[in-house]
Amino acid sequence: MSLLLQQVVLDGRQVDILIVDGLIKKIAPELNDVVADQVLAGAGKAVVPGLYNGHSHAAMTLFRGYGDDMELMEWLTTKIWPLEEKLTEELVYHGARLACLEMIKSGTVFFNDMYWHFAATARAVEEMGIRAALSGVIIDLNDPVRLKEQIAVNRERFQISAGFSSRLKFVLGPHAIYTVSKAGLEWVRDFAAENDLLIHTHLSETEQEVKDCLNNHGLRPVEYLAELGLLSDKLVAAHAVWLDGKEMKLLEKHQVKVINNPVSNMKLAVGKTFSYRHFVEHGVSVGLGTDGCGSNNNLDMFETMKFSALLQKFAISDPTVQTADEVWRMATADGAGIFGLNGGVIAEGRDADLLLIDCDRPEMAPGHNLISDLVYSASGAVVDTTIVAGKVLMQGRKVEGEAEIIAAARAAARQLMQ
Amino acid sequence: MSLLLQQVVLDGRQVDILIVDGLIKKIAPELNDVVADQVLAGAGKAVVPGLYNGHSHAAMTLFRGYGDDMELMEWLTTKIWPLEEKLTEELVYHGARLACLEMIKSGTVFFNDMYWHFAATARAVEEMGIRAALSGVIIDLNDPVRLKEQIAVNRERFQISAGFSSRLKFVLGPHAIYTVSKAGLEWVRDFAAENDLLIHTHLSETEQEVKDCLNNHGLRPVEYLAELGLLSDKLVAAHAVWLDGKEMKLLEKHQVKVINNPVSNMKLAVGKTFSYRHFVEHGVSVGLGTDGCGSNNNLDMFETMKFSALLQKFAISDPTVQTADEVWRMATADGAGIFGLNGGVIAEGRDADLLLIDCDRPEMAPGHNLISDLVYSASGAVVDTTIVAGKVLMQGRKVEGEAEIIAAARAAARQLMQ
Repeated sequence: MSLLLQQVVLDGRQVDILIVDGLIKKIAPELNDVVADQVLAGAGKAVVPGLYNGHSHAAMTLFRGYGDDMELMEWLTTKIWPLEEKLTEELVYHGARLACLEMIKSGTVFFNDMYWHFAATARAVEEMGIRAALSGVIIDLNDPVRLKEQIAVNRERFQISAGFSSRLKFVLGPHAIYTVSKAGLEWVRDFAAENDLLIHTHLSETEQEVKDCLNNHGLRPVEYLAELGLLSDKLVAAHAVWLDGKEMKLLEKHQVKVINNPVSNMKLAVGKTFSYRHFVEHGVSVGLGTDGCGSNNNLDMFETMKFSALLQKFAISDPTVQTADEVWRMATADGAGIFGLNGGVIAEGRDADLLLIDCDRPEMAPGHNLISDLVYSASGAVVDTTIVAGKVLMQGRKVEGEAEIIAAARAAARQLMQ
Repeated sequence: MSLLLQQVVLDGRQVDILIVDGLIKKIAPELNDVVADQVLAGAGKAVVPGLYNGHSHAAMTLFRGYGDDMELMEWLTTKIWPLEEKLTEELVYHGARLACLEMIKSGTVFFNDMYWHFAATARAVEEMGIRAALSGVIIDLNDPVRLKEQIAVNRERFQISAGFSSRLKFVLGPHAIYTVSKAGLEWVRDFAAENDLLIHTHLSETEQEVKDCLNNHGLRPVEYLAELGLLSDKLVAAHAVWLDGKEMKLLEKHQVKVINNPVSNMKLAVGKTFSYRHFVEHGVSVGLGTDGCGSNNNLDMFETMKFSALLQKFAISDPTVQTADEVWRMATADGAGIFGLNGGVIAEGRDADLLLIDCDRPEMAPGHNLISDLVYSASGAVVDTTIVAGKVLMQGRKVEGEAEIIAAARAAARQLMQ
């Protein structure tokens, strides 16, 4: 399968790009002699890498706008948890399809997800053509019976994942140190090591988590994970805002990957800003995530990039921190790298996970600096074409079947509310 | 001139809306017998008030993306001021047209502007059909000759403004207390009172401004304006972030209007959060603005609403502050009220400044709560139709002449850079 992009603008110069079997095969000023299965006329649109969403709960699209402006625990106990108990695989499927649609339409080519009814999200991802790292939610609440179930379920998921397309990656998803037992975390550690799996968890999102960990274990969260041997370059930790200097050094030493979720952190008022500059100084890989629609309320990585850079500047009263180029790299090359992916950069041999940007829009004019315009002025609506693994998932802002996907998600949400 | 909106959804129920001579004449479940000059099929789209942008420098669209991530003074002296010296009326006209286009496309029906070459912005607003309160930039730098010029220019502008359409409002724009002399501010005070004009100024944006005011006048900025008799319900103060309790009480006492610009405050790292809750507790009218494209970098009030609500929550670690409904009201009814406008609310007799929202988009689904979706999930791209003073300025996201406007702004920016 081959795709030829004609007359796209890469770093300011017009090129043609040939894609074969999901990879960028050739980039040249003109590829007139090439015969391709599909030809797409770029018409001067800018080509950039797609965006990598490092932390999400895709099917929570079903809860978008259902309970905002509330205290975290009140929101969870009165709004989210009662609904999550009613979730079925079918409902999650429809929520995850809506999430994939929203991400494709806003230029995201990959997301790292943790949610209930794992198989439903996997089905949505397979069908929609996007990439994902998928985990279920491992929670045992210190109950050995529940842990045994979780181990069985995750062993089964791992086996099933062998049948996934290469766009899907199975990941272990221990929810957090306060919802998974020591034995549970140790099993995750060992199973991940045996099978070369990434581990995706929430870490140090709130002050309460730190206090509880100190009370229960006499250690701060990162120290606790260090003691259990969970820290490694296979660990992807979402949030990591409530850290001290010693914890930062541990994350550095073990090359743990961290994902910042600025919109969610602000909406839930977690009370502390992600220490971006410290992470960079310590050489820790930092990616960017939207978190779920319950606490964001969208999946638009363009918006998340702007929130990230502006929150950093505001928090430390320094307008020079986290430049447009830096946050763009977090959402592209660095995001891809964290998940061991070959995309995030446009070069021969790389994954063909690309966007064509419509620059003929007022918010993209006059166009002094494309990356600045993408980070500070654009929303996901500037994306004209989304290509994942060499397949055109959106063209002219149209995604196949989108009206039906939206209608089905609406019906699923209505059913949940009944 | 009459316009009939058929089958639009207002607060959850389907209605027809008849607009005559720029005002909402009738709202009813069906208006089948009405004959109108123009009929617009709403097809189930949601109708909401348009958005009111309380503080902007429209033509700074020409500088979008030209210098980000810099210290304020370095940015002004090396990037902005040198370019502003080269501005001509023609260049400002093209920048202001681009701004009007961007605002119309993102659902803004009115903006309160302060910028050089006032007549150029007025011409753009007249042509584009949007509403605006327009001021030049009064700066005298304590130079009596310059003040005399400014007085003459502003008297002339005021006379010319008698010929403006009713969509334009002439406003006096003393830049700030540190760029306008005492005599200048006193002239502004008297001329505004004589002619019933609003005054638009920057106030207490940075700590430096407060320090300098204390050094030069022995007073904090609001106290200084109080002493000069500038505080009144005709004063619209942009920013107002660096205030103490005594200044807050003065603003309350004199019913001064304040405009919060959260995106600009974050990008420029002004170091303090707008005290929204205190303003509300003191009964001060609060509106919302984008500021200019130099420090934002777009004019999308949807994005600004989300930044506003989330920054408030994060800054005081309280997710319940500034709800979606509150920030929506700031951008609509309260914004209109600050400028003495009759819009911001959809009711018979009100200005027909309306938006039709396309809810058939993933970020608007499943649709539990329209206002939450508009504030926390949408970008300006959800606006399908923009109506100002009963005239359809955008329909199906198309604005007449937009390609030419963008091309002309690009050419203007290129000319500036030469």
